[in-house]
Amino acid sequence: MTVELEVICVGNELLIGKTMNTNANWLGKQATNLGTNVKRITVVQDSVNEIATTICEALLRKPQFIITTGGLGPTFDDKTLEGIAKALNRKLEINQKALAMVKEKCEEYAKKRQLSTTIEMTAPRVKMAKLPEKTEPIKNPIGTAPGVRVDVQGLVLFALPGVPLEMEAIFIETITPLLKQAVGDEVFCERSMFVDKMIESNLSPLIDKVMSDNKSVYIKSHVCGEFLKSHSIRVENKPHIEIHLTITAEEKEKSAEKLLKTMKELASLVEANGGLAIFEE
Amino acid sequence: MTVELEVICVGNELLIGKTMNTNANWLGKQATNLGTNVKRITVVQDSVNEIATTICEALLRKPQFIITTGGLGPTFDDKTLEGIAKALNRKLEINQKALAMVKEKCEEYAKKRQLSTTIEMTAPRVKMAKLPEKTEPIKNPIGTAPGVRVDVQGLVLFALPGVPLEMEAIFIETITPLLKQAVGDEVFCERSMFVDKMIESNLSPLIDKVMSDNKSVYIKSHVCGEFLKSHSIRVENKPHIEIHLTITAEEKEKSAEKLLKTMKELASLVEANGGLAIFEE
Repeated sequence: MTVELEVICVGNELLIGKTMNTNANWLGKQATNLGTNVKRITVVQDSVNEIATTICEALLRKPQFIITTGGLGPTFDDKTLEGIAKALNRKLEINQKALAMVKEKCEEYAKKRQLSTTIEMTAPRVKMAKLPEKTEPIKNPIGTAPGVRVDVQGLVLFALPGVPLEMEAIFIETITPLLKQAVGDEVFCERSMFVDKMIESNLSPLIDKVMSDNKSVYIKSHVCGEFLKSHSIRVENKPHIEIHLTITAEEKEKSAEKLLKTMKELASLVEANGGLAIFEE
Repeated sequence: MTVELEVICVGNELLIGKTMNTNANWLGKQATNLGTNVKRITVVQDSVNEIATTICEALLRKPQFIITTGGLGPTFDDKTLEGIAKALNRKLEINQKALAMVKEKCEEYAKKRQLSTTIEMTAPRVKMAKLPEKTEPIKNPIGTAPGVRVDVQGLVLFALPGVPLEMEAIFIETITPLLKQAVGDEVFCERSMFVDKMIESNLSPLIDKVMSDNKSVYIKSHVCGEFLKSHSIRVENKPHIEIHLTITAEEKEKSAEKLLKTMKELASLVEANGGLAIFEE
């Protein structure tokens, strides 16, 4: 059974090109390697309405998991929990468990800085503990703002912080085991090979043939940048098309064998048509 | 008037984390700098249905521009034009202008490689010239697959290739002038400053105050990675919060002045509260 997952990244900085969306890339890779099918990544502005709408749309598509990143911090533009509350028609309320987590982090911080004053639970700090009703805070091993787990309509939504190290830590600690369990024995395998002396439009029918012979394997060709940077002139001895082969199946060893068999088949076809195929056994 | 723009990136490689979505980042930056409001970025799989659904959803939100990247090439998994045709309920047909463009590129390629045989217009090559009815091919200055311009429901949709250099070349040549015209005199300005010796939850009310005094300026704080990498202990003399100030308004000089005034105001508040503000005049 395919386990579908969607990622929603909240943050103007991602839309205006100030910040590269490394979070989406990292999550996509992790979730795929764990055997889930990452169906969609959506990036939206720091706006309660935009966040709420995007979550409602994702819920309608019924993936098993939704992961949001960003918007959990103490500043006015951190609006993800308000957006989730609106999407689910739930109230935001101070969650005592979350409040204790925030407090502990603030005290740790004061101790590290050797501040003698007790850290006051100001409105911005309390804000990080205001969760939609009936949700669970998740301990943030690195930063202050807790993550949030929401069980809704038979799926699980996780709200993670936008700071990469915090997001990654919570994903590894809390989400990875859950995805593994949901996926069961499915594993994801991938291999790359390279083709030179052949343009993509000549390679295309060969890929079609090999894919129809190896139905479980997905093959995608990528024209490499180096080739194009030299103004469409092939750089001698540099492979210019990467062929990426992927499979998600139950047995790791058999999957690896299937990928190798498929690569060999494609390599023979490429060479029979005057191209050069480069891959490791 | 705000000119809204959406980006739709097509490609499994983006969802499985194989490829960093540098296209979305580049487009977001360019479009923002030209004064448009980038509302949403959506990444979807190489699936006709997924592409069609995503385009229909974007059309309903009525941005002035939609830009898609990826899926224009010769291989089976290049499905963007089929997705657009499905979304608009139009047929795919061989566009003679596009066919001539593809042919020219193939002949150039043969000439460069000093091939004596004429390049055959095989099915994968013709595929790149199969456009939805009533659309315009756009010359690709670098690669083979033409871009496509679609005028629909009062908005303009551009389909661009996924290879970054090709996408960028078409954007600069064809889309930039059009966005400039649509935006008119609006310009986007941004500045960054840094704050140290203060945590984000203490900075938050200061930002609120400064934003309410300077309504046209948007201020967002970003916790810097270096700070967190050192296990929540501030690195001496390294600023740990970046404050990013942006404004989109009609007069560039006045905007720059407004940003500087706003930075100075925030800096005073930060210093009055025991923090350190770092910025250039």
